[in-house]
Amino acid sequence: MGHRVAVIGGDGIGPEVIREALKVVEATGVVLETRAVELGAAHYLATGEVLDDATLEFLRSHDAILLGAIGPAIGSTEVPPGVLERGLLLRLRFELDLYVNERPFRTIDPSVTVTRREADFVVIRENTEGPYAGEGGFLYRGTAHEVAQQGSLNTRHGVERVVRYAFERARSRPRKHLTLVHKTNVLTYAGDLWSRTFAEVAAEYPDVMTAYNHVDAASIYLVEDPGRYDVIVTDNLFGDILTDLAAAVTQGIGYAASANLNPARTGPSLFEPVHGAAHDRVGTNTANPWAAIRSAGAMLEFLGEHEAASRIEAALSVLPPPSATTTQIGDFYAERVRHGDR
Amino acid sequence: MGHRVAVIGGDGIGPEVIREALKVVEATGVVLETRAVELGAAHYLATGEVLDDATLEFLRSHDAILLGAIGPAIGSTEVPPGVLERGLLLRLRFELDLYVNERPFRTIDPSVTVTRREADFVVIRENTEGPYAGEGGFLYRGTAHEVAQQGSLNTRHGVERVVRYAFERARSRPRKHLTLVHKTNVLTYAGDLWSRTFAEVAAEYPDVMTAYNHVDAASIYLVEDPGRYDVIVTDNLFGDILTDLAAAVTQGIGYAASANLNPARTGPSLFEPVHGAAHDRVGTNTANPWAAIRSAGAMLEFLGEHEAASRIEAALSVLPPPSATTTQIGDFYAERVRHGDR
Ligand SMILES: CC(C)[C@H](C(=O)O)[C@@H](O)C(=O)O
Ligand SMILES: CC(C)[C@H](C(=O)O)[C@@H](O)C(=O)O
Repeated sequence: MGHRVAVIGGDGIGPEVIREALKVVEATGVVLETRAVELGAAHYLATGEVLDDATLEFLRSHDAILLGAIGPAIGSTEVPPGVLERGLLLRLRFELDLYVNERPFRTIDPSVTVTRREADFVVIRENTEGPYAGEGGFLYRGTAHEVAQQGSLNTRHGVERVVRYAFERARSRPRKHLTLVHKTNVLTYAGDLWSRTFAEVAAEYPDVMTAYNHVDAASIYLVEDPGRYDVIVTDNLFGDILTDLAAAVTQGIGYAASANLNPARTGPSLFEPVHGAAHDRVGTNTANPWAAIRSAGAMLEFLGEHEAASRIEAALSVLPPPSATTTQIGDFYAERVRHGDR
Repeated sequence: MGHRVAVIGGDGIGPEVIREALKVVEATGVVLETRAVELGAAHYLATGEVLDDATLEFLRSHDAILLGAIGPAIGSTEVPPGVLERGLLLRLRFELDLYVNERPFRTIDPSVTVTRREADFVVIRENTEGPYAGEGGFLYRGTAHEVAQQGSLNTRHGVERVVRYAFERARSRPRKHLTLVHKTNVLTYAGDLWSRTFAEVAAEYPDVMTAYNHVDAASIYLVEDPGRYDVIVTDNLFGDILTDLAAAVTQGIGYAASANLNPARTGPSLFEPVHGAAHDRVGTNTANPWAAIRSAGAMLEFLGEHEAASRIEAALSVLPPPSATTTQIGDFYAERVRHGDR
């Protein structure tokens, strides 16, 4: 019996890149039992549903979820902003307790990157609390006296588990280096909890070297010297910003994969490329499936298919052939997986 | 009578770069009545005071404050982290109601920047509220059940005045383009207040083109295409991150000037380079005073010395001579100001 994987192609180029990702998985010989699940902007417009409870329960019954992209065409006004983000993407992270958002960044060919720097690091982003908790409210809304409060909720439970995951991750890598990124000099409550927890967990990992950077300094370092990082652990919102920045300074957003993990395995984890739906490219066969393939590789790794996962990672260590189509890129990496280029 | 300017050289290379900035101001012929004020890490270690009330009142009695850099040597543990930031830098922003933090970014020579892109934009950062308000608290601190709440407080009053300032700023520039940066899809309360206020003020500025970017997307754009921006207006914390990023993708942090403004002029405004104290370079005559000089130019502009300010800006349109010392760089720009290179 294969792994049961719910496949949400989603919107725009989502289904196109997922098709190539599945093609490459197939080339590894690993058998997946996939079920297509319709969700996203098109589904919402057709049905009025963002994510109904039955679909959520159906997703829960799988070993993993592979997702392409979610979102309406830019400029479309039929889907109110935030509805799909909060009702679908964030809801899945919260409901499935996907408390680790792991995003690997590695330059394949620095000479064609914006910054031309070598880098190989992983960002571990807290994924179920912080400023994403939705805490807040208004006073005197719509008047000259309006106050809008927006809260960040951070728990020892939530911070400790992601910090611990990050230490494990750092320990598994040759450099064994972990940097906490926060803004402790200004966010004194959240920052204090993060720093104390980080220091306490660090005591259990004497073999892991640690560092701390303020988020503003980290943004400079990512541009000027991304090679300094090995593993970064950070808060949900800082992680959101830093991972897009990290993509931009390494191989680009087309090469940003992500794994939304529930390491406690109380339910399926979710794997998705970071890029958007790019509706303008639908049907042109020009989308780059690299990040979707990489995300599928992370899925196999998490499902225990280590050999297949490392074959995919090895296959992805070269850029796709210039001007190859989406399909050709999928074929190219499937070929490399089959013939064991590593 | 000259403008009364309180000069806080501060720590590390602060006094060195300020000396050059004052040299260049002098070259414009504008007369300043300067008073040195001792504040910073060294002052704190010597006196135990971060900023006493008498000094604050003394600062208030000036037309402007010019500040070099504040902060202990990296690795020094005598000054607890956050004490100077909150007790001095942030306290001045709050007490003097410096609600606009304006940071200009312009590539002088893109070929020597990390990203090699042309850019010329200004970031207007809200400077007295948001996540910097200090709202928050703990529950069950130090236990497994700990919750740390960190709040962002945003008022119509505070958002509107900085947004209005940004529209004025955009109107004064040839491109007349203003981008709001926030994370409205996740920070629904704060984001809603910012969006509504932005839209309402925009209606009064039909000649200014507007755009909106999520902060994560803005980080990508700043790296891949910084030239797209003209004026950015954003929240205090996003502004902190984006201005360091903006410095990194334009000419570097050595070229990042800033103006902490109270446009209502109920007290002095404060001008400071964004870079730190760089204690390791003290006395080596290698600090780059460009950003301090640029900050002093912004000060003259704000004091109504438009001609002198534009002479400084024109003088700064070339990089300093290679391997020039701090003093030589000051002399170089003073010379350019005197001979009217523009
Ligand atoms: C779509 C959005 C809600 C999401 C986030 O903010 O986390 C995205 O930017 C991401 O990084 O996965
Ligand atoms: C020193 C620190 C408190 C400050 C900030 O966070 O605003 C600095 O990073 C800045 O950008 O001026």
